[in-house]
Amino acid sequence: MKKNETIKEIRQQIPQKSLSSFTLKVKRIGIDTKKHLVIYMREDCALCKSEGFRSEARIQISLGERWIIATLNVVTSEILKNHEIGFSESAWVKLGVRVGDEVIVSHANPLDSFGYVRAKLYGKPLARSGFKNIMKDMMEGRYSDIQLSSFITACVDLSQKEMIALTKTMSETGRQLKWGHKHIVDKHCVGGLPGNRTSMLVVPILAAQGLIIPKTSSRAITSPSGTADTMEVLAPVTLSMEAMKRVVEKEGGCLVWGGSVDLSPIDDVLVQVERALDLDSSKQLVASVLSKKIAAGSTDVVIDMPIGPTAKVRSKKEAQFLSSLFLNVAKAFDLNLTIVVTDGRQPVGRGIGPVLEARDVLSVLRGDEDAPQDLRERGLFLAAKIMGSCKGHTPQAALLEAKRILDDGRALKKFEAICEAQGGMRELHFASFKYVVTAKCEGVVKNIDNRLIARIAKLSGAPDSPSAGVDLHTPLGAHVGKGQPLFTIYATSAGELDHALYYFEAHQEVIKIREGSL
Amino acid sequence: MKKNETIKEIRQQIPQKSLSSFTLKVKRIGIDTKKHLVIYMREDCALCKSEGFRSEARIQISLGERWIIATLNVVTSEILKNHEIGFSESAWVKLGVRVGDEVIVSHANPLDSFGYVRAKLYGKPLARSGFKNIMKDMMEGRYSDIQLSSFITACVDLSQKEMIALTKTMSETGRQLKWGHKHIVDKHCVGGLPGNRTSMLVVPILAAQGLIIPKTSSRAITSPSGTADTMEVLAPVTLSMEAMKRVVEKEGGCLVWGGSVDLSPIDDVLVQVERALDLDSSKQLVASVLSKKIAAGSTDVVIDMPIGPTAKVRSKKEAQFLSSLFLNVAKAFDLNLTIVVTDGRQPVGRGIGPVLEARDVLSVLRGDEDAPQDLRERGLFLAAKIMGSCKGHTPQAALLEAKRILDDGRALKKFEAICEAQGGMRELHFASFKYVVTAKCEGVVKNIDNRLIARIAKLSGAPDSPSAGVDLHTPLGAHVGKGQPLFTIYATSAGELDHALYYFEAHQEVIKIREGSL
Repeated sequence: MKKNETIKEIRQQIPQKSLSSFTLKVKRIGIDTKKHLVIYMREDCALCKSEGFRSEARIQISLGERWIIATLNVVTSEILKNHEIGFSESAWVKLGVRVGDEVIVSHANPLDSFGYVRAKLYGKPLARSGFKNIMKDMMEGRYSDIQLSSFITACVDLSQKEMIALTKTMSETGRQLKWGHKHIVDKHCVGGLPGNRTSMLVVPILAAQGLIIPKTSSRAITSPSGTADTMEVLAPVTLSMEAMKRVVEKEGGCLVWGGSVDLSPIDDVLVQVERALDLDSSKQLVASVLSKKIAAGSTDVVIDMPIGPTAKVRSKKEAQFLSSLFLNVAKAFDLNLTIVVTDGRQPVGRGIGPVLEARDVLSVLRGDEDAPQDLRERGLFLAAKIMGSCKGHTPQAALLEAKRILDDGRALKKFEAICEAQGGMRELHFASFKYVVTAKCEGVVKNIDNRLIARIAKLSGAPDSPSAGVDLHTPLGAHVGKGQPLFTIYATSAGELDHALYYFEAHQEVIKIREGSL
Repeated sequence: MKKNETIKEIRQQIPQKSLSSFTLKVKRIGIDTKKHLVIYMREDCALCKSEGFRSEARIQISLGERWIIATLNVVTSEILKNHEIGFSESAWVKLGVRVGDEVIVSHANPLDSFGYVRAKLYGKPLARSGFKNIMKDMMEGRYSDIQLSSFITACVDLSQKEMIALTKTMSETGRQLKWGHKHIVDKHCVGGLPGNRTSMLVVPILAAQGLIIPKTSSRAITSPSGTADTMEVLAPVTLSMEAMKRVVEKEGGCLVWGGSVDLSPIDDVLVQVERALDLDSSKQLVASVLSKKIAAGSTDVVIDMPIGPTAKVRSKKEAQFLSSLFLNVAKAFDLNLTIVVTDGRQPVGRGIGPVLEARDVLSVLRGDEDAPQDLRERGLFLAAKIMGSCKGHTPQAALLEAKRILDDGRALKKFEAICEAQGGMRELHFASFKYVVTAKCEGVVKNIDNRLIARIAKLSGAPDSPSAGVDLHTPLGAHVGKGQPLFTIYATSAGELDHALYYFEAHQEVIKIREGSL
């Protein structure tokens, strides 16, 4: 090489290998990294060496017009061959590659919108433009988990103006529904009480009454069942937006899984990190709930807020604070919001787990004599609240109307019609393994731990095994004799049953009995 | 199974498989996840099923008395066999497992100390007890990256009291040195200017003068060389604490890599996430720097703070703010701290990259006629500042004394003695590929971009190839003729040279020339 050659000359001497001409063959290596997108490249890969890619770098992988941003893990073993690039399950699905595809890899562009997060940390409030830029990048998957974590942490403290801007921006990240009706009603329960499946009563009662209630629900995340899981044992819930609209237009209501209808989809991205941080931010909770309601085109919403020592909201003071946040934001969107504070000291109904909960709901709809009265009362109460808030009924008249619709079978008929419209009603199948936990002494049930009982139901296999779970026989205040059944654990395998029992052995405080005879 | 059997009876019927008796055989699967500890388990593994482990769960892996906390990735392919558990490189090293070992896996305990982070977010200042609990858990690897990110984000805003508590707690996470001398001196440069290797001049000058300067330095993280990298081409730098102490006791000074001596080791954990966030928190910078100095037993410290548009500190205002933070915290620890604001508009010396920088340092120490004067002046200036701050010399007398020590060869002799004491002085080997970039026009050099020139040096292979890098021929203000050499790129392979050139082609603004003849 001579001195003072021009760059052009040099580049003609060295074989052309401009970065954009390097491609790598995709390989699905079967590692599940959840929503986190991870890419695996060999340490001795020409691109790693030339681009200076290191583990944990954020890189862009392109296939034609499509691309994703992922985190790199460098591989030093033979799980990848030369010229191969490994995809985690999430990255494989997200980029939509197929065996044989070749992709182009480059450094991800700097994340300019993170500048708004930095500015917020240094005292500059986040405005609409900041949230818009941030959420655009988030929707494109440009934020790594630690950047998401930093955003969420920075947003624990939001002014009312910021909360409104965040809610509006979140509501615009997916579809935004418009309906040709004056009232679109909805309900949402803050912080899951096990068994609290009131939506499955409220929707048919209100739809039978003539209201429009396009209800979307979530699946279980850390709980033994979400409303979508419980509904799914009775009817399909994974409906497209168009299918959901057809159901609602035909029946006035639906009970579908929110994950398939693209309402405020950014919420899923944030919730995942919030959960891992266990960062219970009231302000983000409000933005999360209301952004979905606003995107769904709701006009009248009732929020069920259970209070109890093992519920999400633990005191009246907490409930007041959270309520004021909800009401202030709702006002900015002309949303007619009603907060209903309920008893959160114990599970609702008897069953915990999809099939057992669905059985309780059906039993209330059918008017069975032994139907769980607490579930029935809550369902009626919430339905009446919504009716009162948008139909102008007095509380008594609304409750009477809701009872009539439930008791004369119109609610059951509507529920069956909704199930049919969503794809056909299904029969319940119960678990074959069960074990009855009995009282060790005579006394009164004085405490039930919502979290522990949910954990036992989960360990027994719920919701992955829909028929697994727990049936609670003795609510708070019940008198029990020694040896009397307290709850039954259901499972679909002896191993899972054993596992739930093993956990119960170590956590017998799940049900506390104050000893003493009648 | 009959109803009402006791739990004991059931557990005798079902084969015993209490979780603690499950073990899995370790497998090193050769995935580099950097400091992030990752564990891979099969989806159909009995433990995943029974424990309900999911991807991204935090789990504890135990081998005898030792244990680590890691993030789980569930594997759905055949890269793991049944009863195997895969380890990322970092997890393998951290737990210290060997082929054939069997480990026990369980859920990680909840991270109680994160409660302090949550409380901080809700307005409660962090006190010593909070920082202590948090850092104990961090040192045990209990914090995931997103939890670290949340902590770092929450700590962007710290009061002076909190900064002092953080600094103290960090300084106690590793060793704390005590020396039997009145003055232990040190220096630190905030925000790397390429080529700014003044430590390699300051240490021998001050040690030759009789002061004690146990200097630890970092390796390059994102730059083409750290002082430890540059020093390493001349002598070993990975010394144990004991070996470092022996060098200092013999020669009065040392130039070792900080990573091996366990001073404020928590800093490495935090820096990794701060870098990924690119969150430039002055308060954490101060705690990071001072915690190391305090742990090292320093009494008198000079901070070199270069200001320039492409340096870390960009304005006088920023420098004033950062200086006041440094001084306030130092005061709480009775640390005699001097801030020296220097010119940060261009690289220091000529070479950028380990070998080229070491050549510059030696050339100054040897008093070569063409030695880079800017490097010499800075070294003398900083050495004099420290001398003045603890020996009571006037600025003029201190500078004169420093010059004498450098010019009469005592500094060179001391440097060679330190190299010998650290394990033996090494010879420099230069790169075989080079390319000279020349001026396209006649004019005056009016701008040099520190970041871009560092990037070119990095792409040429520095610091992994120690002899790679850039030699800058024309500082700011130099008159150049058309075709005159501006800088030379060195590399150890044609590919890397080409790669650096490719980058330069796209970023010719690295050196700006104001056109015009003399």
